[in-house]
Amino acid sequence: MLDPNLWFSEVVASDGSAFSLKIRERLHAEQTPFQFIELYATEGFGNLMVIDGCTMLSTRDNFLYHEMMSHPALFTHAAPRRVCIIGGGDCGTLREVLKHPGVESAVQIDIDERVTRLAEQYFPELTASNDDPRAQLLFEDGVRWIQETAPGTLDLIIVDSTDPVGPAVGLFTSAFYADCWRALGDGGILIQQSESPLYHMQILREMHEAMRCADFTDTRTLCFPQPIYPSGWWSATMAGKGVALADFRAGDAECKPFETQYYNAGIHRAALAQPEFVRRGLAVEN
Amino acid sequence: MLDPNLWFSEVVASDGSAFSLKIRERLHAEQTPFQFIELYATEGFGNLMVIDGCTMLSTRDNFLYHEMMSHPALFTHAAPRRVCIIGGGDCGTLREVLKHPGVESAVQIDIDERVTRLAEQYFPELTASNDDPRAQLLFEDGVRWIQETAPGTLDLIIVDSTDPVGPAVGLFTSAFYADCWRALGDGGILIQQSESPLYHMQILREMHEAMRCADFTDTRTLCFPQPIYPSGWWSATMAGKGVALADFRAGDAECKPFETQYYNAGIHRAALAQPEFVRRGLAVEN
Repeated sequence: MLDPNLWFSEVVASDGSAFSLKIRERLHAEQTPFQFIELYATEGFGNLMVIDGCTMLSTRDNFLYHEMMSHPALFTHAAPRRVCIIGGGDCGTLREVLKHPGVESAVQIDIDERVTRLAEQYFPELTASNDDPRAQLLFEDGVRWIQETAPGTLDLIIVDSTDPVGPAVGLFTSAFYADCWRALGDGGILIQQSESPLYHMQILREMHEAMRCADFTDTRTLCFPQPIYPSGWWSATMAGKGVALADFRAGDAECKPFETQYYNAGIHRAALAQPEFVRRGLAVEN
Repeated sequence: MLDPNLWFSEVVASDGSAFSLKIRERLHAEQTPFQFIELYATEGFGNLMVIDGCTMLSTRDNFLYHEMMSHPALFTHAAPRRVCIIGGGDCGTLREVLKHPGVESAVQIDIDERVTRLAEQYFPELTASNDDPRAQLLFEDGVRWIQETAPGTLDLIIVDSTDPVGPAVGLFTSAFYADCWRALGDGGILIQQSESPLYHMQILREMHEAMRCADFTDTRTLCFPQPIYPSGWWSATMAGKGVALADFRAGDAECKPFETQYYNAGIHRAALAQPEFVRRGLAVEN
């Protein structure tokens, strides 16, 4: 039925589901030192980037993920000035971060420069802010970069990585969270993509536990739709260093001096709501 | 890649996407006078009902849809006693409605009795409340039933139908909405499944316009995840007869005397939040 010459499919073997996009052509494919990257032109979702067989982003729906990986944490921190993004090589999260006028520096550390070079070619709207003087793009190991960062020198760490298998596995450990905690100043926030609420409650539970183990005082999962990811429903989890994550600068979010496609103050509150099975699964007060 | 002998796929041709579930076996298939119904046992989602090639419900994720088609409207109405469900033959929405002790009668009108008989066999947990003395199951044309209902005799009409093509097309017209308006008492609410926010903004816009045309004083779209439906993101739209839909009986929702898997008061508020592109597309105040 779905001819592999006409469709790209990502199969989730553990849950017996698959999501497919109809393709016009394969634009590019290469094996980098780190991963296998493919680019497709699709019929209905614009361009599509695939890494190691997993959909990463499409032109049509990446706004959901990139806005939710950035604005909720930025509007939760009292005054975020120094931001770092681990991963995020497509630069879509960086673009959202740079929309905040108070941000003074935004460092993106992705291990694979080819992701960024291919994003420049196939998702130019996402890399359009890369020459902002506040932005710095590094291509190295983010785990080591965080280890070597001077204590208390970051306000916000965004972990915009692939799944907790392969190159990104080191980003889901309490050792990494402890390094993040040290690098953050008081009131600092870590936010990390945290998979599907429907498929990956075990990963979510372990993340919360590992973040609390690393001395973060509050943790909170945000849920949002993401059609091209497994189950179409995704999450990001915040960890706060002496900051309550249920509150945010709602007035500033309501008067934000930039446009978004998904995020607004109401959506921020909505993402904080915990479905009953998530609340029970995490045993966190709603 | 996806062998049609091993996978059931629903293709959305207009958007070039497909969602697939791995199947263990096809349990049943029949052409009724109204539609072609298939039942599958899947690897990861329990049983699956498919009507005319479209996924209808799975054991694993139907709780999202059924809870959101019922509880938000029930907790918005001041005191819902008389409920009718148009469509909904799988009885999952009926089960949720009957959890509300204040409901005195719940009439389900599905044109195709075979949907209910197959649900009894393959989704027995959804039909377990069907012998509740408050429940009445009719198998006839819901459009005509609403036309013939005495004015002002219903508090809540839930339209739990297939997509606005084929047998359900008459349920998406201002003539039908006008009949619903007449059948509802003051403060009454109509709620109808309203497709994907990402794929079907045009349908959503037309529904709001048709509902307002039929003299409903407020309309409001609720968004929620639904993995097996196109884009994995779904909506229901409420129309109020002299009732504001942004408020609800939050205290009652917080103390609800029954269990849910997704819905709670926080999720109710979350579903009311309008993503930026939806807000602009509907030109409704947030």
